[in-house]
Amino acid sequence: MAAREIKRTAGFGRSSGNKLARIVVKFGGTSVATVERIRQAARHVKREVDAGHEVAVVVSAMSGKTNELVGWVNEASPLHDAREYDAVVASGEQVTAGLMAIVLSEMGIQSRSFAGWQVPIHTDDAHGAARITEIDPTELDKRMKDGWVPVITGFQGISPHGRITTLGRGGSDTSAVAVAAAVKADRCDIYTDVDGVYTTDPRIVPKAQRLARISFEEMLEMASLGAKVLMIRSVEMAMAYKVRLVVRSTFDDPDAPQVAPDGSDTGVPGTLVCDEDEIVEKQIVSGVTLAKAEAKITLRDVKDNPGVAAAIFGTLADQGIIVDMIVQNIADDGATTDITFTVPDSEYDKAIKTLKDAGDRIEYARISGSKGGAKVSVVGVGMRSHAGVASSMFKALADKGINIQLITTSEIKTSVLIDEQYAELAVRALHTYYGLDKKDV
Amino acid sequence: MAAREIKRTAGFGRSSGNKLARIVVKFGGTSVATVERIRQAARHVKREVDAGHEVAVVVSAMSGKTNELVGWVNEASPLHDAREYDAVVASGEQVTAGLMAIVLSEMGIQSRSFAGWQVPIHTDDAHGAARITEIDPTELDKRMKDGWVPVITGFQGISPHGRITTLGRGGSDTSAVAVAAAVKADRCDIYTDVDGVYTTDPRIVPKAQRLARISFEEMLEMASLGAKVLMIRSVEMAMAYKVRLVVRSTFDDPDAPQVAPDGSDTGVPGTLVCDEDEIVEKQIVSGVTLAKAEAKITLRDVKDNPGVAAAIFGTLADQGIIVDMIVQNIADDGATTDITFTVPDSEYDKAIKTLKDAGDRIEYARISGSKGGAKVSVVGVGMRSHAGVASSMFKALADKGINIQLITTSEIKTSVLIDEQYAELAVRALHTYYGLDKKDV
Repeated sequence: MAAREIKRTAGFGRSSGNKLARIVVKFGGTSVATVERIRQAARHVKREVDAGHEVAVVVSAMSGKTNELVGWVNEASPLHDAREYDAVVASGEQVTAGLMAIVLSEMGIQSRSFAGWQVPIHTDDAHGAARITEIDPTELDKRMKDGWVPVITGFQGISPHGRITTLGRGGSDTSAVAVAAAVKADRCDIYTDVDGVYTTDPRIVPKAQRLARISFEEMLEMASLGAKVLMIRSVEMAMAYKVRLVVRSTFDDPDAPQVAPDGSDTGVPGTLVCDEDEIVEKQIVSGVTLAKAEAKITLRDVKDNPGVAAAIFGTLADQGIIVDMIVQNIADDGATTDITFTVPDSEYDKAIKTLKDAGDRIEYARISGSKGGAKVSVVGVGMRSHAGVASSMFKALADKGINIQLITTSEIKTSVLIDEQYAELAVRALHTYYGLDKKDV
Repeated sequence: MAAREIKRTAGFGRSSGNKLARIVVKFGGTSVATVERIRQAARHVKREVDAGHEVAVVVSAMSGKTNELVGWVNEASPLHDAREYDAVVASGEQVTAGLMAIVLSEMGIQSRSFAGWQVPIHTDDAHGAARITEIDPTELDKRMKDGWVPVITGFQGISPHGRITTLGRGGSDTSAVAVAAAVKADRCDIYTDVDGVYTTDPRIVPKAQRLARISFEEMLEMASLGAKVLMIRSVEMAMAYKVRLVVRSTFDDPDAPQVAPDGSDTGVPGTLVCDEDEIVEKQIVSGVTLAKAEAKITLRDVKDNPGVAAAIFGTLADQGIIVDMIVQNIADDGATTDITFTVPDSEYDKAIKTLKDAGDRIEYARISGSKGGAKVSVVGVGMRSHAGVASSMFKALADKGINIQLITTSEIKTSVLIDEQYAELAVRALHTYYGLDKKDV
């Protein structure tokens, strides 16, 4: 207790990775796919413990195990009770947690496993997609103060009725963030098979750079736009509870020096996802994202009545069709308007048929559209204070002769729909234009 | 509640398989090895439910799964915390219980899974080999009365400290018997990959017969002598709590008529293990068992002091050597005696060395022995009231020219050690001699 207080008062800096800290670390399925990999993961934990940090671990199931369990459940019955699905599927993390505790103990670190119900991690009773309602930090807090490393099953908790719940696929990230919030951790390190968040997809732009820092808001826009590094929900929760996240690789040498990719003071070799306030030099644009196979559909001369948009998109939602971009112009004749939106190419035919069938309820003159679009977006909190990002983006694309079909904007993101064949060209052009290219490649 | 009482008063006969009953059924690993097998097992449950019985199910892990989990634990560390071993290994039954509940629900049977900690099944904290201390029957009892089929994870419980415990390998039989005792079940059906208990090994004696009934005491002697159908501990517990066990096959047609092998009134196509009082026509001998590869060791002219036997067998136990038969004659000179005992052939060299090394503490003149013995035993509660079983056994063997090396007896068992080459001959001869041969083969 006293030791802890000394740590806290000894300049427990937010941005420092070198001072003593309380850290929650989370390992995904590929990081714990075998006992050998669990050992590799445990060496990262050991490094933090040896440095004097307090550490709790959250683990996913071994890669492939959850799929195996889900397969059995579906074989047992395609229409199964979600509570039994949860009881079966939650067993995967129980295995990893026990194995991790054993490996840590063998390394001389005091450790024990906790199933979600043992912590306990309380959730609602929405089995299969439960939400964490409360985590009792008492036992975890006590263990960590006593120098123990608790290993907690990710992805699961216990319902008000005492049944095991799961949070939905990828929920271990959310578990980790929730635990970090509950124990007031200074950092939540998400160990995965990539070494951070990049300015864009390195397969498209070899000069893409790993970011040392990115804001929660930017990460949310990046994640929803296809940078599948973190579950959106976990980022939302991290933002709400101000839990600083680090995205980093399990496969890095655990004993290598801990240095930020740009040599800055985050002190961790990965991307720190944090509050905007922690980012001093804000880039206007932090990243460029791409989503392909987007089809656009236009309804012309739609009766411009209140509720018409709700009717259109409600009809599509009823059919399970997910709409991405939506653009509506002001009615030029004061009576009708044009509405354009995008859906995945695979849903195009279904969407057209759904709207034609609903012709009696939704009044419009013509419907048209085409598949094969690509959505290119630039994301950056710097946009808030810099006017003209949209127009500069359009100019950069025009310089390459790329025609823009649709435009949507949010506070920190501008997206355009273009012909899919120009997708990579557009991403490379924008990456260079906003100064994101790595210098030494 | 009322319905239950009506059932009870309506001649709820102990020996009747046709009246309404409360049954705990247990499925072993091979019975639930795949989802398809779980479905087959569930059809047995459905038959009982359709007949109006109240049923609870206890399941093992899918065959091979426990070994996989144990393998990972040992790979993580050969010297692991038994609590973590339990957390990992107990996950296997959790999977099967959920899958079984799903399959039963699909068949229109109301069902839910219970992990050991959810029942709860309380155990002591001897992790890896825990003993059940108490089962709270409240929830199970209520569910069964309401027409539900609870599916309970075998092999595990919860310690006084809230950790998951396991009962040791094969512990699911014990779980089933303990649940049956807790809910006051009329029967505990152990579904396995054999269809009952036989008079002897059918591979040695094709005329071996499946027994319709066998007493707990006989079953204990049969089990410890190598008829590996039931865990000894589960039979002991069944005897203590007077839980009637049935050993039967999962692979029988679930919709076939339920008939005892000898057409008697047990009404179940398997072997009923029950109190001696339920067995009206007691066979003098119920079965013949065989254990091969037994080595005998003789210590000659052992100083006949108090504590000498304890010194000898304590020394062997310290080395982990399991001793089976022990014979000590009365000292003929009043000062020294000969002691002979058997150990597994594989332990013979180690046992000889251990005793030679302990020569300063155990005073004896000579040590001798040989491998390659076979222990043949006849078991039967009828022996209690029939004198001369031992002598008739010796005569039957003498008629075949088989020499007897050692003899030990208990109340319901007589065992002899003979040369291994006569083992099968001896078993067949005794099986015929005691009238156990099937008539129509």
